[in-house]
Amino acid sequence: MNVQLLREWFDELASAGVDRGGGVTRLAYSAEEDLMFQKVASFAAGLGLSAAEDCVGNMYISFPGMEDEACHTIGSHLDSVPRGGMYDGVIGVLAGLLVMEKVRRLGLPIPVKTAAFRCEESSLYGLATAGSGAVTGSFDVPHLKRVKSLSGESLYDAMTKKGYSPGTCVLKPMLDFTEIHIEQGRVLWESGEKIGVVTAIAAPTRLKVTFHGRQDHSGATPMDLRKDALCAAAEVILAVEKAGRDEKHHATVATTGVVQVTPGALNVIPGAAELRIDIRGIDKDSISRAAEAIRGAIKDAERTRGIPCDVEIISASDPVALDEGVIESLAGAAEKSSLSWRRMASGAGHDAMKVAPLYPAGMVFIPCREGISHSPEEEASLEDVALGAEVILEGIKIRRGMV
Amino acid sequence: MNVQLLREWFDELASAGVDRGGGVTRLAYSAEEDLMFQKVASFAAGLGLSAAEDCVGNMYISFPGMEDEACHTIGSHLDSVPRGGMYDGVIGVLAGLLVMEKVRRLGLPIPVKTAAFRCEESSLYGLATAGSGAVTGSFDVPHLKRVKSLSGESLYDAMTKKGYSPGTCVLKPMLDFTEIHIEQGRVLWESGEKIGVVTAIAAPTRLKVTFHGRQDHSGATPMDLRKDALCAAAEVILAVEKAGRDEKHHATVATTGVVQVTPGALNVIPGAAELRIDIRGIDKDSISRAAEAIRGAIKDAERTRGIPCDVEIISASDPVALDEGVIESLAGAAEKSSLSWRRMASGAGHDAMKVAPLYPAGMVFIPCREGISHSPEEEASLEDVALGAEVILEGIKIRRGMV
Repeated sequence: MNVQLLREWFDELASAGVDRGGGVTRLAYSAEEDLMFQKVASFAAGLGLSAAEDCVGNMYISFPGMEDEACHTIGSHLDSVPRGGMYDGVIGVLAGLLVMEKVRRLGLPIPVKTAAFRCEESSLYGLATAGSGAVTGSFDVPHLKRVKSLSGESLYDAMTKKGYSPGTCVLKPMLDFTEIHIEQGRVLWESGEKIGVVTAIAAPTRLKVTFHGRQDHSGATPMDLRKDALCAAAEVILAVEKAGRDEKHHATVATTGVVQVTPGALNVIPGAAELRIDIRGIDKDSISRAAEAIRGAIKDAERTRGIPCDVEIISASDPVALDEGVIESLAGAAEKSSLSWRRMASGAGHDAMKVAPLYPAGMVFIPCREGISHSPEEEASLEDVALGAEVILEGIKIRRGMV
Repeated sequence: MNVQLLREWFDELASAGVDRGGGVTRLAYSAEEDLMFQKVASFAAGLGLSAAEDCVGNMYISFPGMEDEACHTIGSHLDSVPRGGMYDGVIGVLAGLLVMEKVRRLGLPIPVKTAAFRCEESSLYGLATAGSGAVTGSFDVPHLKRVKSLSGESLYDAMTKKGYSPGTCVLKPMLDFTEIHIEQGRVLWESGEKIGVVTAIAAPTRLKVTFHGRQDHSGATPMDLRKDALCAAAEVILAVEKAGRDEKHHATVATTGVVQVTPGALNVIPGAAELRIDIRGIDKDSISRAAEAIRGAIKDAERTRGIPCDVEIISASDPVALDEGVIESLAGAAEKSSLSWRRMASGAGHDAMKVAPLYPAGMVFIPCREGISHSPEEEASLEDVALGAEVILEGIKIRRGMV
């Protein structure tokens, strides 16, 4: 693989969405995400490839004349969390271009494409893999209208404002789909292994929890007469952590990533407190137990404090098993490469899980420094990206019976 | 007192700063607070009175020709908390105008003025009674430059942007200062008493507490490897509540009114969490015990979680005793009025505590419905405001030896 070319692309992307607070902020359907797509399209043009958008702005990069042909497709996403890292998603798209460059350079008879999806991160709309999900039947138009950013704009409106028309297209046929991604965990980093062949993807269950207390003066309201929504929420935040810890042997995790109080003033007892909670795992029973424990804590807070609470399920999906044939071909390629590698599950969600119900899908993980991701400190090696791309290409050859 | 006139003024103010979320939002040095000052100045003009601003925008309303004379001054503030009520502060200013109207109508030989202070609420800058404090030596220019809104603007910049020049004036001499305010608690409401003569004002101790954890991916970071800043903060939120409850027999209260997490996304473990905490009481030892308990909980969270925390003391002031002479004259007036009344302490801070070190100061509380304040549901009776104004005027007569 042409690591030098990969490095040039990566450096060219570095300036997009730089956040003054550190890291990059390339939120779904923002000008910064648009810029990422424009830059990647220009890399494709530089290789003489053609790029086309679908009805929600996902981009597919093809060898000229092969736009309508079902290919081995490699890809990921180009958006980021707020103050996120530069590797998450991006390397999966660049790996696709890298494979295409090598296939063409060597004149290999392999039909291959690159896909770049929109809005993989749930940061803004609380909905993950929205770009891939919107063209694979997971999220219909009413769903896209229902999910809203904190400022109140629906994802549907964000898409149509950009000129897209969700609901009018589906993902075009693929031979299969493979995605390279940083692990976003510490397993490979600590073991020193270079490649993880992913067998299943954990699915998130997401809750929006809102306590409705009573807004009162913080100086003149005796402790016994309060209905403090934030104190009720604090009990739930700790219960979320406990639920994850209690299920840790099943690899389930639980997180409260968002808290907002109303009115949020130093001298006012919070009248309302909203939490957004993320539960993930690859064991459905374990996920259910964690969710039940959290619901129990919410009920306890409601009852003991007399503060009512609304619970809205933002999403609840099942873990996704990846395709056996793709997994075995990637395992074969990794084994042949003489790199150290392992089979593993993915704790994080990825676009591959949205493609998996329609076309054979697989994933390759590479290590990231200390497992840190969704952070300005996220870091991976571009050499490792090239190794992962090589495993993807070799896996395709195995599936095609070329080796 | 002319209750009909009071009602007209009150109705005219109702449209200022109406918040779509309910109640009124008239934040310090906002266009909405400006509008309140303009409207009150127009009421003064309607009575033939003169209005003048000082170097931070506080307004003084005088009988023409008496602008430079030391008077019995009656007043309060015109700003509000976000989504607050229409009585807090406002009635204290209108009561001043009401007394002046009566004094002039009856031709009483009493020198009286009205004062309307800026930025009494700490909502925006974390600093209460900033307008009165800035002209009474409590807050110097470096202090006003140091306190900042969440958006990062200093109070000093907010003042100078409006054309004011903090640090260039002091409060002009007064004979004394009296303030009518809603109680913002349930004591009068539950007892059915009409008047509270305030003996002392509780002082707030305010802390800004910031945990610095580690921002990581919420799906791929095992529970044992996390440094979740929000979970540490949740322990402190509950410790703040417990500290207040443990000291409730000393009338101390403790509240976390503000929480902000970074980055605040559904799929990211919070890397930082900031709390703003308000502790108040009239017993210095009890306040100290509560503050110590909270600091202990912060240390525990730091130690057990390995998450460092910054603690900044935003303010820490002593309870303020009001003037004995003013208290006794107000008590005499209340007693003579045949209204039911009581002596009581104020849990909330008020502008009177900033005037008290310079000139004799007193306060009169009237009941508010269910003790609710800092809320859209705040409600009081304008008849009660007129009764309070009558007690203020009779108190002045007693102090002048007129009765």
